[in-house]
Amino acid sequence: MCRWLAYSGSPIPLEDVLYKPDHSLIDQSMHSRMGVETTNADGFGVGWYSGQATPARYRSVGPAWSDRNLHEMASHVTSPLFVAHIRASTGTAVQQTNCHPFRHGRWLWVHNGLIREFRRVKRDLMLAVEPALFADIEGETDSELMLYLALTFGLDDDPPSAVQRMVGFVEDVGRRHGIEHPIQMTVGTTDGEAIWAFRYSSEHDSRTLFYSSAVKGLRRLYPDNPVIQGVSDDTRLVVSEPLGDLPGVWNQVPESSYGVVQKGDDRLEAFRPQTP
Amino acid sequence: MCRWLAYSGSPIPLEDVLYKPDHSLIDQSMHSRMGVETTNADGFGVGWYSGQATPARYRSVGPAWSDRNLHEMASHVTSPLFVAHIRASTGTAVQQTNCHPFRHGRWLWVHNGLIREFRRVKRDLMLAVEPALFADIEGETDSELMLYLALTFGLDDDPPSAVQRMVGFVEDVGRRHGIEHPIQMTVGTTDGEAIWAFRYSSEHDSRTLFYSSAVKGLRRLYPDNPVIQGVSDDTRLVVSEPLGDLPGVWNQVPESSYGVVQKGDDRLEAFRPQTP
Amino acid sequence: MCRWLAYSGSPIPLEDVLYKPDHSLIDQSMHSRMGVETTNADGFGVGWYSGQATPARYRSVGPAWSDRNLHEMASHVTSPLFVAHIRASTGTAVQQTNCHPFRHGRWLWVHNGLIREFRRVKRDLMLAVEPALFADIEGETDSELMLYLALTFGLDDDPPSAVQRMVGFVEDVGRRHGIEHPIQMTVGTTDGEAIWAFRYSSEHDSRTLFYSSAVKGLRRLYPDNPVIQGVSDDTRLVVSEPLGDLPGVWNQVPESSYGVVQKGDDRLEAFRPQTP
Amino acid sequence: MCRWLAYSGSPIPLEDVLYKPDHSLIDQSMHSRMGVETTNADGFGVGWYSGQATPARYRSVGPAWSDRNLHEMASHVTSPLFVAHIRASTGTAVQQTNCHPFRHGRWLWVHNGLIREFRRVKRDLMLAVEPALFADIEGETDSELMLYLALTFGLDDDPPSAVQRMVGFVEDVGRRHGIEHPIQMTVGTTDGEAIWAFRYSSEHDSRTLFYSSAVKGLRRLYPDNPVIQGVSDDTRLVVSEPLGDLPGVWNQVPESSYGVVQKGDDRLEAFRPQTP
Repeated sequence: MCRWLAYSGSPIPLEDVLYKPDHSLIDQSMHSRMGVETTNADGFGVGWYSGQATPARYRSVGPAWSDRNLHEMASHVTSPLFVAHIRASTGTAVQQTNCHPFRHGRWLWVHNGLIREFRRVKRDLMLAVEPALFADIEGETDSELMLYLALTFGLDDDPPSAVQRMVGFVEDVGRRHGIEHPIQMTVGTTDGEAIWAFRYSSEHDSRTLFYSSAVKGLRRLYPDNPVIQGVSDDTRLVVSEPLGDLPGVWNQVPESSYGVVQKGDDRLEAFRPQTP
Repeated sequence: MCRWLAYSGSPIPLEDVLYKPDHSLIDQSMHSRMGVETTNADGFGVGWYSGQATPARYRSVGPAWSDRNLHEMASHVTSPLFVAHIRASTGTAVQQTNCHPFRHGRWLWVHNGLIREFRRVKRDLMLAVEPALFADIEGETDSELMLYLALTFGLDDDPPSAVQRMVGFVEDVGRRHGIEHPIQMTVGTTDGEAIWAFRYSSEHDSRTLFYSSAVKGLRRLYPDNPVIQGVSDDTRLVVSEPLGDLPGVWNQVPESSYGVVQKGDDRLEAFRPQTP
Repeated sequence: MCRWLAYSGSPIPLEDVLYKPDHSLIDQSMHSRMGVETTNADGFGVGWYSGQATPARYRSVGPAWSDRNLHEMASHVTSPLFVAHIRASTGTAVQQTNCHPFRHGRWLWVHNGLIREFRRVKRDLMLAVEPALFADIEGETDSELMLYLALTFGLDDDPPSAVQRMVGFVEDVGRRHGIEHPIQMTVGTTDGEAIWAFRYSSEHDSRTLFYSSAVKGLRRLYPDNPVIQGVSDDTRLVVSEPLGDLPGVWNQVPESSYGVVQKGDDRLEAFRPQTP
Repeated sequence: MCRWLAYSGSPIPLEDVLYKPDHSLIDQSMHSRMGVETTNADGFGVGWYSGQATPARYRSVGPAWSDRNLHEMASHVTSPLFVAHIRASTGTAVQQTNCHPFRHGRWLWVHNGLIREFRRVKRDLMLAVEPALFADIEGETDSELMLYLALTFGLDDDPPSAVQRMVGFVEDVGRRHGIEHPIQMTVGTTDGEAIWAFRYSSEHDSRTLFYSSAVKGLRRLYPDNPVIQGVSDDTRLVVSEPLGDLPGVWNQVPESSYGVVQKGDDRLEAFRPQTP
């Protein structure tokens, strides 16, 4: 449906990840290999942290491959933490307010997948959003609503728990509507300090998600690769599908699990939906 | 905030009303005389009936004055009943799903004005929308929500009553939130047979709205005007502000009233909000 | 690079050709089978005749598959003669003035292919355009320039000769710049009366082009097909790649030839570039 | 027709100049006071230097006032030298390739004004462009062509001379076509080191252009203004019309003259078109 990535590490021009690799995210906008759709051309977005409280965003509705402003921006803006997303709409309008990353305060949120039969459950889900947040919802996607439910369930305090409660709630509402497998998702979210990456689906057959190996090991594997030699030890990428074809670089996030990219050791944990 | 018009009568190219008059609606997109804003350039839309069950729409997000597709379409499409709207956003996104006319089934809906402090009352208003209609709301405007409330309150059966109940409900919710004057509006709506045009505001100081005089009288006034001589007896225009400057053509819709343009005699009635 | 079609015959809603067939042109915008690119999402355009001197156009820069206005228009506008084009840019900007069909007076023009090393020959080609036409060129594509060269070489008087002279000139200029195979093209052009469809490339390995069989024969082949039974005898389609999979419907335009769809008998002739 | 500004000095967020002042450039996009048109909503652009050889650009076709990406970018991007432009089209298409700043190599170029009867002289002017540069012209505006003529006449080596030769040539061509006053312009151009700002028109009645006073003097005038106290001594702004209303800040560039903002002393000189 969509493709996304999240980067944390040495400050680099966004272009180095978005455009330069073989099979880059921009290339995936026209030729995805692992996506449900090969074309992800219903808008895109990039969000990055530049030292201010609120991250910056650039979102637009055309295909990423032909957007000149994106290429300009990606080659001139440097950031230590950013996310990017290319969209394949499942029916909702191609408009900026439906483009990822969604943002609330310091949070950014990207999603690949769907809440099944969203039209049937949308009202029930929206009623569960914290009333003070309700009017902040701008678009009409399941993905944005998932962020607002996660915020309602405590994203600020405990992201894994909030997302597990959000998913548990979506599954509960869906099943009450007779929907067998209510949710399918990979989600990336960040507060500018850490990145949380989730892989889960009600049917336990989730969309692909990969994380890059520790840089220290990659340096030994690729002593002549200037990019790998150049980035800091704590540099990490999470991607819907691998960029490039280097063996040993990419590891699949296991089914029903989530990872945390952070200062100190990264972690990989089981993901267990919690019915609120 | 916005400008709109509704036309019913002899089938004509849309261009004859949208572009050709002095001070046409397209001209008003840059130079409105009577609007709260002189510039109405945050998108526009046209809806027309072409003999099918559902009316057609063309909506776009740029200024109307520079939209070449609109001019092409307006000079090649002929219709006996159409509405057009130019938008000045009160803060919501400039995107197609926020552009008028809104549509549901055979209904088209245009609005100039606002629900005051909409963010505070939005959730309460949305909860009142008929659940089966809830997921049809695509945009984030007060105007679209007013249509869905009117549908909930019986637009299909009795348009004046449904709109009066919608307004009564919006005023009731607003006042419960401490909002002194909850609504300001001119609204045009049509099912392809008749046009209903409403002028009302809680403070009884509503935006301007005009209707054209009966063609029979105008023919005597302007025996040499080919347009006036050419159109059928039942041709009628409703506009936010007059097109052209011909004396005797335009009549103000009185404060707190509504008109019906229909086969047979047109009517003008008092508008009285009904608390549901 | 691109896909296009041209329709002439019984007046029909554009939608019947653009959207309804299996593997319709809109479907080809995401999943072309025979194109050099599978994705044709760098803008699109439709041009149609509605009884006025100048044909109407609707062109836009996003992918055709998600353009709601196109779908609205195609389901409400009926025409006896129209062309449509979906674009895959070869590098020039994604903007309306680079979208086909190009238009001059009553002429419409669509192209699939390219003038090779266009940047090197562009200046020489532009200098050959009739000075009175020079300032009418709005975009930056080879395709539009081909139209203006064809106009310069007499499109109004003898379309096949003008296009053969245009190609001869482009080949001559290209070869003087050391370009082995200067042009690759299928071109469709119409004045609202007839359609001319050209298939040619300097290397004699041209992009695909098909025309539909005579309706009379198809009626015997498909006695139960309501579309085929419903259209007039003189209905004809020319397409970059077949719509649908019905055996017997589609015939390849031979290499280095052109066809004329017109009142009276259609013709198929050899295409021979003429050096002016 | 248009409004523009150029900033050089202490690195600041673009927002500080584009959005924050009273009567900022973004505000002028809807409510220009001194422009020929009060509305400048046919696209906009920003170009800035970020330490790379080629400056970055962000250009888009909607009104600047509603462009969320512009606001995001302007509040997160910091630069010591940037230009911005809001466009009021004189008839050419509203598309990105017609939006300023135009760019060639390290040069940026913004223009307010017009070449009169441009359609009549366009071909002659284009033929004078250095052939190696010809295919770099992307749009259809007089403004972009003026840049390419200036490049042809030596912009890289001696900007004032190149612009004076460009204007002399445009006037010469125009007069040969019987055009009384061939050019009207304010132009800003920069190579990332200095800014050249030109004010000239054939009729010697040029559009307005202002430059800010030396910071040292302003510090004494406004001892409590934190912006003025905060910026470096060499900070300078050139603007089509003043931002804000502080007495003593803005000085008109005299008729038929140009200024240079550079390291060391700024200069103000007479502008004399040179017939090449």
